[in-house]
Amino acid sequence: MSTKISNTEKIRQVNRNDIINALRQAGPMARIDLGNYLGLSPSTVTTITAQLQQSGLIYELADQDKDSGVRGRPRVAIDLNPKAACVIAIKLSINELQFELGDYKGNIHFQRTRHLNTRKLSGDMLIEILKTEVTSIIDTHGHEYEQFRAIGIAVQGFVDSNSGTIVWSPALGFRHMDLATPLSDAFSVPVVVANDTDCIGVAVQQSPQYKDVKSMAVIMINYGVGMCLIMNGELYLGGVGAVAEFGHTKFSHEGPQCRCGKRGCIEAYVSDYAIYRDACLMMELPETDVMHPSEQQMQDLAERARQGDEKIRRLYADAGRVLGVGIGNLLALLGPEKIILTGSGIRTYDLMESGIFAGVRDSFVEDLIAGTVIETLPWQEDLTSKGVVIQALSYSEV
Amino acid sequence: MSTKISNTEKIRQVNRNDIINALRQAGPMARIDLGNYLGLSPSTVTTITAQLQQSGLIYELADQDKDSGVRGRPRVAIDLNPKAACVIAIKLSINELQFELGDYKGNIHFQRTRHLNTRKLSGDMLIEILKTEVTSIIDTHGHEYEQFRAIGIAVQGFVDSNSGTIVWSPALGFRHMDLATPLSDAFSVPVVVANDTDCIGVAVQQSPQYKDVKSMAVIMINYGVGMCLIMNGELYLGGVGAVAEFGHTKFSHEGPQCRCGKRGCIEAYVSDYAIYRDACLMMELPETDVMHPSEQQMQDLAERARQGDEKIRRLYADAGRVLGVGIGNLLALLGPEKIILTGSGIRTYDLMESGIFAGVRDSFVEDLIAGTVIETLPWQEDLTSKGVVIQALSYSEV
Repeated sequence: MSTKISNTEKIRQVNRNDIINALRQAGPMARIDLGNYLGLSPSTVTTITAQLQQSGLIYELADQDKDSGVRGRPRVAIDLNPKAACVIAIKLSINELQFELGDYKGNIHFQRTRHLNTRKLSGDMLIEILKTEVTSIIDTHGHEYEQFRAIGIAVQGFVDSNSGTIVWSPALGFRHMDLATPLSDAFSVPVVVANDTDCIGVAVQQSPQYKDVKSMAVIMINYGVGMCLIMNGELYLGGVGAVAEFGHTKFSHEGPQCRCGKRGCIEAYVSDYAIYRDACLMMELPETDVMHPSEQQMQDLAERARQGDEKIRRLYADAGRVLGVGIGNLLALLGPEKIILTGSGIRTYDLMESGIFAGVRDSFVEDLIAGTVIETLPWQEDLTSKGVVIQALSYSEV
Repeated sequence: MSTKISNTEKIRQVNRNDIINALRQAGPMARIDLGNYLGLSPSTVTTITAQLQQSGLIYELADQDKDSGVRGRPRVAIDLNPKAACVIAIKLSINELQFELGDYKGNIHFQRTRHLNTRKLSGDMLIEILKTEVTSIIDTHGHEYEQFRAIGIAVQGFVDSNSGTIVWSPALGFRHMDLATPLSDAFSVPVVVANDTDCIGVAVQQSPQYKDVKSMAVIMINYGVGMCLIMNGELYLGGVGAVAEFGHTKFSHEGPQCRCGKRGCIEAYVSDYAIYRDACLMMELPETDVMHPSEQQMQDLAERARQGDEKIRRLYADAGRVLGVGIGNLLALLGPEKIILTGSGIRTYDLMESGIFAGVRDSFVEDLIAGTVIETLPWQEDLTSKGVVIQALSYSEV
């Protein structure tokens, strides 16, 4: 075994994957721009792109310079070939299974959603449904792509990505279920199982505006409160057990009941179910799925607050303050460059904002937090899908 | 610029530093064992050690095999040459400046301590004292080493290691002070400024029993409550502002006053000053420096608890529970492989232990924490010095 060779081989692989990722992230580019973007030499870019072109993974676009007005030698842009491969992205959340097909560029092509009582499913039933749907999609669309490459599954809850196991999910009535092995056996492709918020984090990190941020926490507020950590430029997957369960850090050990079984979790004040539950105690509201009030119900509640209902306004302000104290803990522990708030719950950011910053000020010495930027990212439903497609694609890369 | 060359160069440097670190960490070794330890090929080890030997940084020990009973070709162990270089390690804490000299192997040779009212110092006075002491040590001992290589400073408080600046320290009456530039100018050596708990983390990570742990939190309990995070195998230095200020995460936003100015920080229940302050309210105790009760005073208090004083026992149990809830938050956020408790405050681990585990159980779903090992590391005063010496040495490595 020669270390020298294996190191060179490794560098080549890293550079190759960097080039593929850059094209997926930033779109088509001339080779020279690709080199600048990644800090690679022209000769490295030329060698690797030649190999990629030969394998049919990238192709040259028609000469762009007619429009660009740039003079001199024509700069031919290269792009990923969307037809080179496809992956299936699955989102598993409470009472919903969603299926999408991602092409090699990372674009998503359609969506198929199944509504069903997920908590009543056995593990075998879940696997059967997933197999049926994946088979149907591949039978219908697979022939358009040169290769069916991987399956990615975004799961609401705790997963062990190393073993492809769902440890616990609020969507399911059972625990500790290996999803990766049966699906991988059935389709002979690698299967990635990821936490849904981690997928959002990956999608955010992939977007050009955040690509250079080395440390950030992406907090997703909706039916729960999730988080994803990017540390030293990489998704932090932790050591063992759960990770980035910001929603289950404590505001008060004597606080309201949380669905996790403990009391006073941040989620028990800030998530949709918590806000709606608290509002129900103070006024007549339409009945709802306790764990999962609808988007319309949450919008209606927000509207009442905006029209001046003081009780609801206070609920949101208090939720903001709790969130702010939790963010204060994050600042103390991790001091990231950015904290990004997203998820459907930021529909009421206007009602929470002053509470959030009051909570942060209450909880951590001001001098020490000057550097971290706290900002919101408008919620896009497909960030999860985008993230799981990207993970499935990179997982399947040789 | 050729990427290929710079990459090869980089690998050579990484391998060279790995070899030096391995010898510093694990002591003298035969070349073949070094290769196995690091996963490097024999030829790589041979090339690099030849260069190191030529530069006088390592040397061959006398043949060990006479005692080892191993047959066959003699295996000559190599070791770092302790005289190849020295560094000065400085510890700055409340009312104490401590100076030590570290040799190239990372061993510490003597200690010189100055007691003074550090909060009364101006920045210029501090620099003058440091310059005087370093000059005196180098004048006395420098000639024994081939090179004076670096200065490392471990600071109680918040530092910006990138710029070598103390942002805030409870030991000082001023803020935002660049220590690195004036010392580096005066002695023409690189200067590392590090948080004292980070130094402990580096020393722990360097010890053979923890070298393979990829994610851990080292919590240090003493006059305050500090933390160091190792994530993905590296010291996490964060993005901006403070980092790993576990002691200033909140147990209760309405809790006792903390010296940071906020309320209900974990430190305000668990640190020496908090325990002693609370005990004073319930019984006659010797007067003390409010922020800094002595080790003897803390030992005496612990002794009263062990002899059955129920009030003090409850104080320690409550402190344990608060610490446990804080650890629960850490488990939720980071799920590290290990959480290591150390610092002089673990003198009363016996009195806190059941509280700690009750707090952890109270705060986080049990299923999800099974994987993390929580353990204590007996407190050694010189872990900080060890860590700052290691950092200064690696910082100065070419």
